[in-house]
Parts: sequence; structure tokens; C-alpha cells
Amino acid sequence: MKERLEKDTMGEVAVSADRYWGAQTQRSIQNFPIGPAGSMPIEVIRAFGFLKKAAALANVDHGVLPREKSTLIAAVCDEIIAGKLDDHFPLVVWQTGSGTQSNMNCNEVIANRAHVMRGGELGVGERFIHPNDDVNKSQSSNDTFPTAMHIAAYHALVGRTIPAVTKLKETLAEKSAAMADIVKIGRTHWMDATPLTLGQEFSGYVAQLETSLAALARTLPSLAELALGGTAVGTGLNAPRGYDMTVAEHIADLTGYPFVTAPNKFAALAAHDGLVEAHGALKRLAVALTKIANDLRLLGSGPRCGIGEINLPANEPGSSIMPGKVNPTQVEALTMVCARVMGNDTTLTFAGASGQFELNVYKPVMIDAFLQSAHLLADACLAFNDHCAVGLEPNRPRIAAHLQNSLMLVTALNPHLGYEKAAQVAKKAHAEDSTLKEAAVALGFLTTEQFDAWVDPAEMTGPLAAKSSAD
Amino acid sequence: MKERLEKDTMGEVAVSADRYWGAQTQRSIQNFPIGPAGSMPIEVIRAFGFLKKAAALANVDHGVLPREKSTLIAAVCDEIIAGKLDDHFPLVVWQTGSGTQSNMNCNEVIANRAHVMRGGELGVGERFIHPNDDVNKSQSSNDTFPTAMHIAAYHALVGRTIPAVTKLKETLAEKSAAMADIVKIGRTHWMDATPLTLGQEFSGYVAQLETSLAALARTLPSLAELALGGTAVGTGLNAPRGYDMTVAEHIADLTGYPFVTAPNKFAALAAHDGLVEAHGALKRLAVALTKIANDLRLLGSGPRCGIGEINLPANEPGSSIMPGKVNPTQVEALTMVCARVMGNDTTLTFAGASGQFELNVYKPVMIDAFLQSAHLLADACLAFNDHCAVGLEPNRPRIAAHLQNSLMLVTALNPHLGYEKAAQVAKKAHAEDSTLKEAAVALGFLTTEQFDAWVDPAEMTGPLAAKSSAD
Amino acid sequence: MKERLEKDTMGEVAVSADRYWGAQTQRSIQNFPIGPAGSMPIEVIRAFGFLKKAAALANVDHGVLPREKSTLIAAVCDEIIAGKLDDHFPLVVWQTGSGTQSNMNCNEVIANRAHVMRGGELGVGERFIHPNDDVNKSQSSNDTFPTAMHIAAYHALVGRTIPAVTKLKETLAEKSAAMADIVKIGRTHWMDATPLTLGQEFSGYVAQLETSLAALARTLPSLAELALGGTAVGTGLNAPRGYDMTVAEHIADLTGYPFVTAPNKFAALAAHDGLVEAHGALKRLAVALTKIANDLRLLGSGPRCGIGEINLPANEPGSSIMPGKVNPTQVEALTMVCARVMGNDTTLTFAGASGQFELNVYKPVMIDAFLQSAHLLADACLAFNDHCAVGLEPNRPRIAAHLQNSLMLVTALNPHLGYEKAAQVAKKAHAEDSTLKEAAVALGFLTTEQFDAWVDPAEMTGPLAAKSSAD
Amino acid sequence: MKERLEKDTMGEVAVSADRYWGAQTQRSIQNFPIGPAGSMPIEVIRAFGFLKKAAALANVDHGVLPREKSTLIAAVCDEIIAGKLDDHFPLVVWQTGSGTQSNMNCNEVIANRAHVMRGGELGVGERFIHPNDDVNKSQSSNDTFPTAMHIAAYHALVGRTIPAVTKLKETLAEKSAAMADIVKIGRTHWMDATPLTLGQEFSGYVAQLETSLAALARTLPSLAELALGGTAVGTGLNAPRGYDMTVAEHIADLTGYPFVTAPNKFAALAAHDGLVEAHGALKRLAVALTKIANDLRLLGSGPRCGIGEINLPANEPGSSIMPGKVNPTQVEALTMVCARVMGNDTTLTFAGASGQFELNVYKPVMIDAFLQSAHLLADACLAFNDHCAVGLEPNRPRIAAHLQNSLMLVTALNPHLGYEKAAQVAKKAHAEDSTLKEAAVALGFLTTEQFDAWVDPAEMTGPLAAKSSAD
Repeated sequence: MKERLEKDTMGEVAVSADRYWGAQTQRSIQNFPIGPAGSMPIEVIRAFGFLKKAAALANVDHGVLPREKSTLIAAVCDEIIAGKLDDHFPLVVWQTGSGTQSNMNCNEVIANRAHVMRGGELGVGERFIHPNDDVNKSQSSNDTFPTAMHIAAYHALVGRTIPAVTKLKETLAEKSAAMADIVKIGRTHWMDATPLTLGQEFSGYVAQLETSLAALARTLPSLAELALGGTAVGTGLNAPRGYDMTVAEHIADLTGYPFVTAPNKFAALAAHDGLVEAHGALKRLAVALTKIANDLRLLGSGPRCGIGEINLPANEPGSSIMPGKVNPTQVEALTMVCARVMGNDTTLTFAGASGQFELNVYKPVMIDAFLQSAHLLADACLAFNDHCAVGLEPNRPRIAAHLQNSLMLVTALNPHLGYEKAAQVAKKAHAEDSTLKEAAVALGFLTTEQFDAWVDPAEMTGPLAAKSSAD
Repeated sequence: MKERLEKDTMGEVAVSADRYWGAQTQRSIQNFPIGPAGSMPIEVIRAFGFLKKAAALANVDHGVLPREKSTLIAAVCDEIIAGKLDDHFPLVVWQTGSGTQSNMNCNEVIANRAHVMRGGELGVGERFIHPNDDVNKSQSSNDTFPTAMHIAAYHALVGRTIPAVTKLKETLAEKSAAMADIVKIGRTHWMDATPLTLGQEFSGYVAQLETSLAALARTLPSLAELALGGTAVGTGLNAPRGYDMTVAEHIADLTGYPFVTAPNKFAALAAHDGLVEAHGALKRLAVALTKIANDLRLLGSGPRCGIGEINLPANEPGSSIMPGKVNPTQVEALTMVCARVMGNDTTLTFAGASGQFELNVYKPVMIDAFLQSAHLLADACLAFNDHCAVGLEPNRPRIAAHLQNSLMLVTALNPHLGYEKAAQVAKKAHAEDSTLKEAAVALGFLTTEQFDAWVDPAEMTGPLAAKSSAD
Repeated sequence: MKERLEKDTMGEVAVSADRYWGAQTQRSIQNFPIGPAGSMPIEVIRAFGFLKKAAALANVDHGVLPREKSTLIAAVCDEIIAGKLDDHFPLVVWQTGSGTQSNMNCNEVIANRAHVMRGGELGVGERFIHPNDDVNKSQSSNDTFPTAMHIAAYHALVGRTIPAVTKLKETLAEKSAAMADIVKIGRTHWMDATPLTLGQEFSGYVAQLETSLAALARTLPSLAELALGGTAVGTGLNAPRGYDMTVAEHIADLTGYPFVTAPNKFAALAAHDGLVEAHGALKRLAVALTKIANDLRLLGSGPRCGIGEINLPANEPGSSIMPGKVNPTQVEALTMVCARVMGNDTTLTFAGASGQFELNVYKPVMIDAFLQSAHLLADACLAFNDHCAVGLEPNRPRIAAHLQNSLMLVTALNPHLGYEKAAQVAKKAHAEDSTLKEAAVALGFLTTEQFDAWVDPAEMTGPLAAKSSAD
Repeated sequence: MKERLEKDTMGEVAVSADRYWGAQTQRSIQNFPIGPAGSMPIEVIRAFGFLKKAAALANVDHGVLPREKSTLIAAVCDEIIAGKLDDHFPLVVWQTGSGTQSNMNCNEVIANRAHVMRGGELGVGERFIHPNDDVNKSQSSNDTFPTAMHIAAYHALVGRTIPAVTKLKETLAEKSAAMADIVKIGRTHWMDATPLTLGQEFSGYVAQLETSLAALARTLPSLAELALGGTAVGTGLNAPRGYDMTVAEHIADLTGYPFVTAPNKFAALAAHDGLVEAHGALKRLAVALTKIANDLRLLGSGPRCGIGEINLPANEPGSSIMPGKVNPTQVEALTMVCARVMGNDTTLTFAGASGQFELNVYKPVMIDAFLQSAHLLADACLAFNDHCAVGLEPNRPRIAAHLQNSLMLVTALNPHLGYEKAAQVAKKAHAEDSTLKEAAVALGFLTTEQFDAWVDPAEMTGPLAAKSSAD
């Protein structure tokens, strides 16, 4: 492999001749051989693309960078955003906790790529753009990295997670509407309970996703606040007055998202409570999805010895040994993702609580875990939607059989007989394996006609039932 | 101990003669000897007091309960709310996961206490009020218990946690203002960095608490939604039409909080995502408090071999063996509370994800952990405020000495010398244990006069510095 | 309330006249009004009883304390161990993180109680025993509190958790043996699978508890190591040479447990990794119990619309609105406890990782969470055993019906037809709602006789089946 | 892209012509586009290589597979183990929870690659080896996947984590020995305490790592138990009698690790408690490493305004804005890894508790999180060792200055003056900013000569001090 020499304030270091990165990136590669190479999420790099471009533009606005340099920096940033330079960002998550090395990776790539864009040869001659003095002008790793974190996190939620969850919610809402008339047995404590409609059951799932989406949305304003302008410790040293506002406007403009400058830069560097909160909303979503997915798995269990009230699509052979087996595999993928998200929440909690003085130095692990959660939830919701939710269907004969059998229809007798007599009916039917009607009539509590009038499963599922119970 | 016989649909059971509870409560005592007696939070019982009174009033509104019964039920509820019947609620958290036994405990106590209020003798004669048919009318454990959870949780946050955190925030804001002129060394990565004022450092803490409070406030609307009216499975079976609205209005009226009926009762019984979300905000607060408290502990470390930039109040002898030792004990209590809260978040996550079909049966553990977090955080913030934050003072000589020594003032030279020459200055001073000025002049990069003009720590902490760096 | 004045190195403080505690305990009461009073686990206080007695005995052995003082200290310790002085330990968990205040509470109570034992009047005259110079002799809070933690934790596991889990394991083993002949359908992915016996299914639970018990036992040696003798920072300053060995022997002797001195006192004060590990074993147990309890809940679901293969005991009316309902309430209590334990594990993890330099100052929260887990698991296992496991019974008709229906018996045809033809059989039977035999014969793959010979559910559950498949 | 048609029991599906996988793998790719492609850990695939070879050998032993087939299967497995077929395993973690699709991926690749090895053309003609009937013979996904999990987990711990931690432990032990004579101030509660040697301080770290290693070792026997032989539900259906023993022996033989067959196959399929326990030991290690790394970061803080008692190696420029800054970057990478591990523990806990009936279907997420923890800890320990621990050095002047200043040397006066007078000395010195000696003499408690004789920091660090205090 051909190499060239790059240098920084510590001296020279050999870099692969065909890579744009410089000495500090190379040192990081050598000092941190931890986990798979290149694990720093590419979305963070893309966010840096927006950030460095905006920083250059703002530096021009404030008269501290010549427009020619700014234009060149912006041109490289456009390549970064377009994914053309992905191979030049080799660093891992497990580096310095401020993300300094990924910031310098950007600075170095931009300086070197700009050198080449202007016709220079890599490693030869003075560069027109200096990684620190130009690309990083008015910035520090300490304010750029958390800014990139927010840009990436915001985009992950708005661009991926929220649309995916919304799609699933809409599918479930359609199912809820389509199954509004299917009366089925309810279950509480895993035991037979009073009836509801399958549409009502699904409406609960829809409500859970709607409120999860609302919770996600509530955390966006926190993520929209950017640390940039705080520089090294939050005071804005070496940045022009008002730079924080200008650069946030540029970032908002470039990304199309409503980013603003964080009102307190000290907190923005030293803590990432907004990210902790936003991941809390992802965790809430994971909690909701776990419940929903489990229900669908249980409703679809069987085909002959389980609940079997819905049929889930058969997407693949389910077993390498049991022929003909079909499994709720999409449920499994989704709930495994949720387990990951719950763990990631612990990671963000511990990391978020561990900042000290002017800096939290768990930044890379926080954004890595956050993006993993946001992306996996998005992907898994889409897969679950497309390969499971869309195709699920009620198993009407099974639903009807369960409803018919249930002893908990007895609850409709409470307003007529009182709780205690109703309990006698249920117990007698259970003990004798008879129907409720048989038991109730045998006990002399009512007539067959009264039973039929009072115990109407469909009526038990809604306001009409309510009305009758208020007689 | 004198006993009387109580009965339920399963038969008779002996109860202490001087207790108002009935058969089902007694069965629960006997079946669940798990952990300390009476561990069900008393705040949940008080919430039931409001709930049962509101339920009775709403039953009258809807014409399904005679006013005389309602009045009597309300009178007992007033005693429950006032704490007069606390000894009659012996149950533990570790009972049925729907909280049915605590709901029945309330129903039984109200029925029996009403019997006595009307002049009856406990266990003698027919009771005017029936625990199920009257006290529990139009209700189920499945909708009452989650309603009590929300009432208790809402009150804990609004009545205790938020005021306590607000008080601490205000103290820190006063400190921030009072110390606005104290320039000190900043620290990033635990290493000396560029300066800021002590007031700025504290402003970061204030910002963290402000945003934590905002995050808590954002979760209140979720907690304000009440499950009541859903009865057994969410359909509202055996409750009058419109009962859910009426009863929520009564609860809002009685408590003074803006409670409303939950838009979807199926989700309200089967999931407690709102509680998970609200505890996520408590966890965010714990994360913020951990960072703040740790900083204060570190700033106060010493007295001679630590950071020592602030003095924390000495509240007690710190050591049983080391005479004269003073420790940051309030920090320790607070951060231990935060560790508890982080664990409670895991508990709520796991429990919240574990609902199935029409019911989540982890209700008691969820509200127990939630209230523990809310109450401990409130108490610990107040203790921390009163015994630590209020009395902390800057140690000006120490702050000045650190500032004077720091090599990171070199950063102010970046705009004048560029990053690389500035680095040479810092390295030379470090290697030779000299001052920056000596090193810079020796390197021939500037004159003494220039150094003094360019390196002004106070100017480095704010907009003036920014202005100069943009020259 | 009558009061007397107590004093410490900071001055005087008023104490209730009828309490044995002194100035430092009183200061702690006043400075830490956090959560319910007296929340420091009483088991820690009892452990201090053993510890202080052993320390006094060892001090005599080493000639640094007169026997008369030792005898007196031991006499008070015996009262502490017997629970006679519980009312004199009012402190909370949320105090200094070293537990210094609880150590001083012990020292003060012993000194004052000894004064009274010798005929003195509380608060009057010179005390024969000094809290620091005598009771705390050769000790520090920093080595006593972690020692008390280990004593309490060890006893909780050996005295309560392990016996309770063992009892449950034995019950399940009896059930497994009793149900060894009941062939039933297996379920994987919640879908019908190949058969096994109910005894085999329960043998899995027994194996989980056995290995959980083994895991708990593996952590005991870590808990058996005591910090005592390290004094303030682990060097043993102010303790006689060899004191650590002597005092550990006394503690072992007094408690009957195989305690030894920790080989490295610096780690023993500054970290509680052994406690973290031991709680990890409790968490493993909680994971196992969750799985087992959930299975039993699911197997018992119904009675008519669930799995219904076992009947759980009916201990109480299950619902306040649904008459005759029976719920798996013991499962619910147990799984809620498990959710608490999982959260406690997060607490111990965070707290355990947060020690710094010579001391971890999260000691009280760690032992509080640990003991809560150990005790709740013990109590819940016993309740679950007595009120659920002992009384559960197979529902043979239901089991037989499920077995008969299952399509996964087709797997027995693999060795005869190959996986692909077997899959055709299963799919045809599923599509046509027919039996496997009908489908297989209709496809011409085998004769009725062959089917009967090859598909024998009982044979499919064990080695005979294996033998035949190896023909 | 050229394609060929593959088929399974559900029909045909197009596969890239140059890939060995078959229909079920292809379906999985299409149905589970969740997260980065190929995320199933390659270590699991390698483990399958061993497993499938061992299974084939055991099938020959038991006479159910012709040797010719076995030889061919083994030849492909050798390629898998050697990493030659990595490109043919494209599946993700987020698939079916039994890992069935990865098992089938192996079966299909082996069958197709064997076809080519024998001279066949991919997708043309009948294959000699059938994925299910031959490669998967006597197996199920349900027993193979957990077996592969254990093989991969065992190897990760023994082959990577344990050696890496051992190396770090040895480096710290060398440092401890080398610094055995450096007396320094101790710190408890972050406050100055009595002295110890730097060697003693490091001995605590060594002890923590030693016990962490012991804890890891204690979990290996659980991981050594293999599920293979249980087939579909644990009964061993369709496997020859004794197959479980034979195949475990082959795996032990091929891997060189002491694998044995799991005593209870029902638990081995339905629960992964051993993996939960082993990860608990990894978490314990993370807790220990966090403490140790934090201490080193704090000891190295400064260079002028922190603790500064050790110097950490300067590996790279620390800041993009602050010239000359050096940061404890290896500490940061390591502690971020630890935060990840703590989160992974929550994931394993939740997933491990979520098995039901005969199968836990969170297998892939469990092994993914486990291996991530084991590998990251290994890599991070090595990087930390090589780039931080090896090169750290004491800063003797700073250590001496701190020691000289400390007020806590007063503790050595306890045995001579008693705790209360000693406290007076410390307080006077603190108030007057004087030395202890000055204060003690001024108070008339002792002479200068006595002070010098009694207060000897070096003596305070060990048995000599202990001896003198027992005079």
C-alpha cells in the first residue's frame, strides 16, 4: 500500500496514499482498534457535512473567513452529504469521548479534498485550507460533535422512525375499522373476561402508537437545540459574537429542519439530557410495540392448540425440523429490536449521567446507541407492517367458538342479579361444564328469555350495553 | 385478638374485629406475605378515596345509585383522604397485578365503615352499602386501579417533585448570579481547559434543571388521562353511557387537577405507556441531578489535595476514624437516590412492556416504583437544597491560583498565531514548567505586551472575547 | 417530648430523652429527611450487632481494649442482634454514602446503652465506653459498613432466598415426577410443535431453578470476604497487625457462616463487585422465575378460551366486576417481584461502577436494593409455592384434545418420508382442516397402518422415538 | 445480476447466481431488511461450522448418515471455519427469534457448496446433500442455534476477553509493584483521607480484575453445556439415542474446549440463563473497569489544575481548538464500552426472561449483545493496556506536595490523643491554614518531637503503623 506522510502538532504519521484523512485520524485508527472498523455511524458524518458547510458560511457572514475558502469547504461538504467520501471516514465509536477524532477526521478530509479539488496533489505543497484554522474556525469538537449528534438524531426520528411507526399505525387503524363488528372474548390476567370487538382491541394498539408518536414529537424541540457556538467550554471563545445564531440558521436552512441555537451552551456541551429524553420516548415506543407485537403473536398462536383468533401471514418455512410449521417471525424480529432498545436506554442513562464539569465525554456511545434504536425501530416497524400487519386476518370461526364458550358473559347479569348471585351462576357452570344459561335457569335466578335478553355479547361491547345497565 | 367472620363469594374468613376490611382483603394478607406489611403506597389509597367519592357522585348523576348511598360513601372517602383510616389498608404491593385486592380493600372498608357510621355494628346485620354492587358500581379493578395510579402519580409530580426541583433550581440560579464575576479555569475531559465564570458553570446546572422541569411538565397531560369508565376490559360494560366523562370531571373537581377521561380505554387498561414516559422524565431528572451533584462534589473536593474551588457546608462529622473530616454527604444521598431512580426506570420498562390482551398486570409494581422515584427525588432535592446548595460558597483564592496556572489560556492566541504555533507555546511551557508568557516570548512569537493584551482570562469568558477573536 | 443534650466534635444537639442514639445520629435525622423514616434495612443493623461484638472481642485478643469494656459492648450487641433495640436505629438509606451515620448510630447506641447497663443515667456523667475510641476501636465506617453489607447479604441468601427457592424447586420436581406420563403438545414460537410430557416440561423449570441455585452458591465466596481491618482507606491504620484475620474469625464464629478477611482491603472498600456479582445471580434467578411463572400462567389460562392445560388453585375472587373469575395472582406477585429485581440490578450496576479512589460511596443504596431483591424473591417464592405450585393439577382432557389435534406430529414422518413430503402432509391437513392421517393417506405417501406405527406421540417424547428414527 | 431459482416447501425464489445460499435464506433477506446487512455475528457462523461438522460425524457414528456425505459436509464446514465462505452468510440479527434462518443459511450453503465441490453446477441437477434431511439430520434450529451461541460465547470469553483482561491486570500489577514505595494521600468521599502507597492503590485495581476474571471463569461451565441433541422441543425427537453425548464430544474435540451435553435439554432450548449469568460477569467486569479507568483519569487530571498524581501517555492532540491539550482518551473509549456493556445486560435480561413454553425466541439478539460486550471489552482492554496503562508514570513531586499538605495525617494521633482532641487539631489547622504540627503544639497536646514520632505517613500505610497504634 502506498503511503504519504501527514503531520500534526505531535509529528508525522504515515497515511494510505489514496485516503484524504490526515495525521490525527490515522493516530485514532492506530490507537483505537476496538470493534469493527468504521463503526462511527455514517449519519453522524453526514451531519458533519451539513455542519461544516454551515460553519463556513457563517464564518463568511461574520467576516472571519474568505468566501473563496468557504466555497471550497462547502463543495467538499456537498460530497460528504452525498455519500461520495464515505470511504474516508474510518473511525470507530470507541475513540475519545468528545468525538474530537471524528471532528478532526472531517477537518482533515475537507482540507485535503479541497487541496485536490483546487488541483493540488495529496500530501504535496501547502494546503490552501487548514483543518484547524479554516475548517474548524469558530468551532471546537466540544460544540461540533454534539451538534452533529442532534442533527443526526433529529433526522433519524423525523426522517425514519416517525414515518415508519405512522405507517404501521395506519395499517392497524385500517384493520381496526375493518374488524369493528367482530365480537370476541376479552382476556384479562390471561383469563377469559367480558367481550369486546376485535376492532376495539386493535384500537388500543392504534392508541398506543398514536401516543408514542406524540411522545416522540414532544422531544423534538430538545433535539432541535444546537450546541454550536459554544466552542471549547461553552463560552464561545474564538467564535464571533452572534455566530451561534447565524450558524444554527444555516444548518436549519441546509437541512430543512427547525434547528435553533441552544439557549445555554454550558449545558449543551456538558450534558445530553435532551438525547436521554428523546431516547426515553423511543423506549416508550419499544414498550408499546412489545405489547402490541406480543398480542398479535398470542392471537395468532396455534394453529390448533393456541388462541388462534387471527391468522398471520406465512412468509417462510418456520422450522428446519417440523414440516409445515409457520411462525410469527416478524413479531420476533420486532420484539428483539425492542429488547435492544431497552438496553440502549440503560446505556444512554449511564452515559448521560456521567458528564463532568464542562464536558460529557460519552458522546459517541450515546449517539451510536440512539441511532441504532431509531433505525432498528424504523426498519422493524416497516418490515412488520409489510410482512405481518398488512396481511393479518381474523379467524372468525375460532373467535365465535371462544365467545360462545366463555363464562364471563355472566358479568352482564350483575345489574340484574347482583355480583354474588352472578358468581354462583359462573361457578356452577364451570363446575358442571355447562352453559351459563343452563346454570342460571337451574338456579332459578332467571328465565331462558331473560337470559337471552340480558346476555348479548355484542351489546356488552359498547354504549348500548352501558345504557341498559343504567336502567 | 378478637375476630369476626367476613364472607365473599368463596366463603367465610376471620378478620380482626377492630378492622374495617373484609374477606378479600384478609385473603390477600394471608396469600401474599411478601415483604413488609402495608407496602402498597398510601398515596394510592388516598387516590382511591378521591376516586370512590367521584364514582359515587357520578353514579348519582347517572341515576344508578341513590343519593343516600352516595353521601355515605363520600363521607367515608373523606376520612380516607384525610388519612383517618390508614390502619385499615394492610395490603402489599406484591399482590394481584391488577390491584384488585386493593380496590376490594377500599370497597370493603367503605362498606363496613359506612355500616358503622349509620350506627351499625361491625359484622352484625345487613349492610346498607355493598362493596361490589354499590361502592364498586360502574367500576372494575381494571379501570379503578390505573385511575388511582394516575391520580397518585400526577399529585406526586405536581405536589412534590416539581416544587422541590424548582426550589433547588432557584437556589442554583441565585448562586449563578452571585458568582457571575468569578473567572475560573474550565475543565474538559477532566483536563484543564479555557476559562469561564463560576456563574456560567452554574448556569449550566440551572439550564439542566429547567429543561428537566419542562420535560416533566410535558408528561403531565398523559398522566391526566384516566382509565375510569372502561370497567372490565375497556368497553365500559355495566357503566352508564357518558359515565367516563362525568367521573373524570368529578375527580378533576375534587383534586383540583385537570384530569380528563382517556380517549381510548383499551390502551388505558392494557398499557401504562404514559407512566413509562413520565418516569422517563424522572430518569432524565436523575441523570441531570447526578451530573450536577457530581460536579459540586468535585468542585468541593479537598480541602487541600482536591479541586477545592467551592466550599460545601459542613453538616456533621464526616468520619468515625478521621477527625475533622467533612464530606459531601448531601451529594451522596442525592446521587444514591438517582441510582435508585435509574433502576426503577428499568422496572417500569420491563413491567410496562409486559401487558397482554386487555390488561397489564404489573400495575402495583409500576406505581410503587414510580412513587418511590418521585418522592425520593423530591425529598432529596429539598435536603440537598437546604443543607448543601444554599450554603455553598466559592473559594476565591483557590480559583484564582488555578486560573493563573492554566496552560489552556493559550487558546486565546489561536486567532493571532494559529493553532500550531499556539500548541508549541503550550508544550514548551508544560515541558519547562514555565508560564505561557515566558514560553511564547522565548519562542519569539510575540512580545510581553502582546501577550498581556491578547490573553485576558476574563475576556475569554464571553462576548468581548468573541469580538476580539473576530478581528 | 423530653430531650437531653448530646454532643460530638461539632457541638451539642438535642435528642429525645428515651432514645439511646447520640449527636451524630440526630444530625443525620435532621439533615436527611428523605423517604420513610428508618429505611436502613434492619438486617444491616443486626449485622452491625455481630460486627461490633466481634470487633470488641478481637480488640481484647490484640490487647487494645480492656475485657470489661468488651464484655459490656458484647452485651449490648446481643440486644441488637435479638432485635431489642430496633427503635433506636432511626436512620434512612439516603444518608452519607459510606454509611458512616449508621455506623455512628451503632457506636452511639452501644455507648449509651452500656452506660445505662452499668447503672448510669442517659446523658448524665462520663460514659465508661466511648463511641469512637472504644466501640469503633480499630475500625472505620469505611470497613465496618461494607462488612455489615456482606454479613447481611450472605445471611439473606443463605438464610432466606436459597431455602425458599429450594422449596419451590422441590415442589416442581414432585410435580414433574407425578406428571411424567402425561403426553402433551409442545409449543415453540407460541405455535404448536412436537409433543413432550408435562413432566418433561416441568423438568425444564426444575433445571432452571437448580442452576439458578448453583449460580447463587457460586457467588457466596465473594460475599464471605470481609473488609474489616482495612479501616479508613484499606491500609489498616490504627488497627493492630493481624486484626483483620482475628475479627473475621470472630464474625464467622458468631454467625456460623464461613467468613474470611478480604485478601485486598483497598478493593473491599472502594468497590463492591462481589455484591454486584451476587445480585447478578439474583437477577438470573428472576429471569428464570419469570419464564417459569409465565409458563404456568399460560398453561393455566382460560378456563375456556385459553390454553387450559393445567388448573391453578383458586385462592380468592379474581375480579371486582366479573363474578366467578379466578386469576393467576401468585404468578402476578412473583413476576412483579422479578421486575423489581431487574430494576435493582440496574441500580447496583450504576452504584457499583461509581466508586472513586479509596471508597465507593453508594454503599447504603446497594445493600438496600440487594436485600430487597433477596427478601422479596424469598417471600414470593414461598407464597408462590404454597398457594400456587403445590396445588396445581393437570387438566388431562384438555391436554389430550390438544395433542390429538396437533399437526406437528407430522415431524415423526421425517425419517420415513423426508422433510418435504412431510411438509406437504401438514399443509394439506391444515388447508383442509383434516387430520394428518387423512392427508398423508390421501397423498399416497403411506398407509393407515404405517401412519399409526410411525406417529406415536408417546414415543415421540423420548429415547424410544430416537431409537426408531435411527433405524 | 445473474440469478438462479431455488426452492423450498413454499415455492421458488430467485437467488444471486454466485451465492451458495438457498430459498430460505433469500426469503429472510427479503422479509427482514432491518439494520445493516449481514449483522448476524460471523462468530456464530463459524460456530455453526464446528457444529455442522460435529453433527455429521456423530450421524456417522450412529449410523444414520453415510460417511461420504459426512466427509463432504465436513469439507464445507472447514471452509466456513476458515472464513472462506463469509460472503455467503448475508442474514441479520433481526430475523426469526430461533435463529432458524441462519441455521437454514448454513444448511443451504453446505448443501450447495458440496454440490459444487463434487463437480456440480449451482442450481443444476439433484444435490447429493439435502439441507434438511442431511445437513440438518438429527438436529433442529431449536437446538443448533443455542449450541452455536454457546460455542461462540465460550470462545469469545476464553479466546479474547479473558486474555485481554489478564494482560491489563498484569500491567497494573507491574505498576503496583514498581510504585510500592510511593506514599500518597488517600481520598474517600473525594476528600483528603489518610495515606497509602500508590502501589497499594493499584493493588486494589489488580484485585478487582483478578476477581472479575475469577467471576468470568465461574460462568464457563454453564456455557460449556450444549443444547444439541434436544432437537425440536428438547425430547431429542428424530435424533439417535445417545446422539447428544456423541455430538458434544465431537464439538469438544474440534474446538478444544470442554463442551458437554446439557443435562436438561428443555431448559437449554427454552431459557438461556447461563448466557444471562455469563453476561452478568461481563457486566461485573465493566463495573470494575469503570471504577479503575475513572480513577486513572482522575489521578491524571490536570496538568496544573487537577489531581495530577500520575501522567498518562499523550497519544494524540487532544483538542481541535485548545493547542497542546492532552486527554485521557483511552479511558474514555474504555468507559464508553462499559456503558454499552451495561446496556447490553439489560437487553439480555429482558430477552432472557421472555422465553415461553419450549423455546426462547430472543436468541439472536442475546448472542449479538453478548458477543458485542465480550469483544468490545477485549479490544478496549488491549488498547487501554497498550496505549495507556503501560505508559503511565507517577508524578512524584505532585504526590509529595499533596501528602505534605493533608490534614488527615491527624488520624495517626487518635491512639495518642483520642478522636476528639485530634479533631480539634485538624479543625484548628484548617481554620488557620496552618500545619497540623503547628496546630497540635499550639493546643498543647504534644511536643514537636512527639508529633514527628507519631505522624509518619509511610508508617501509616502499613503493618508498622498498625503495630505502633496497638502499643
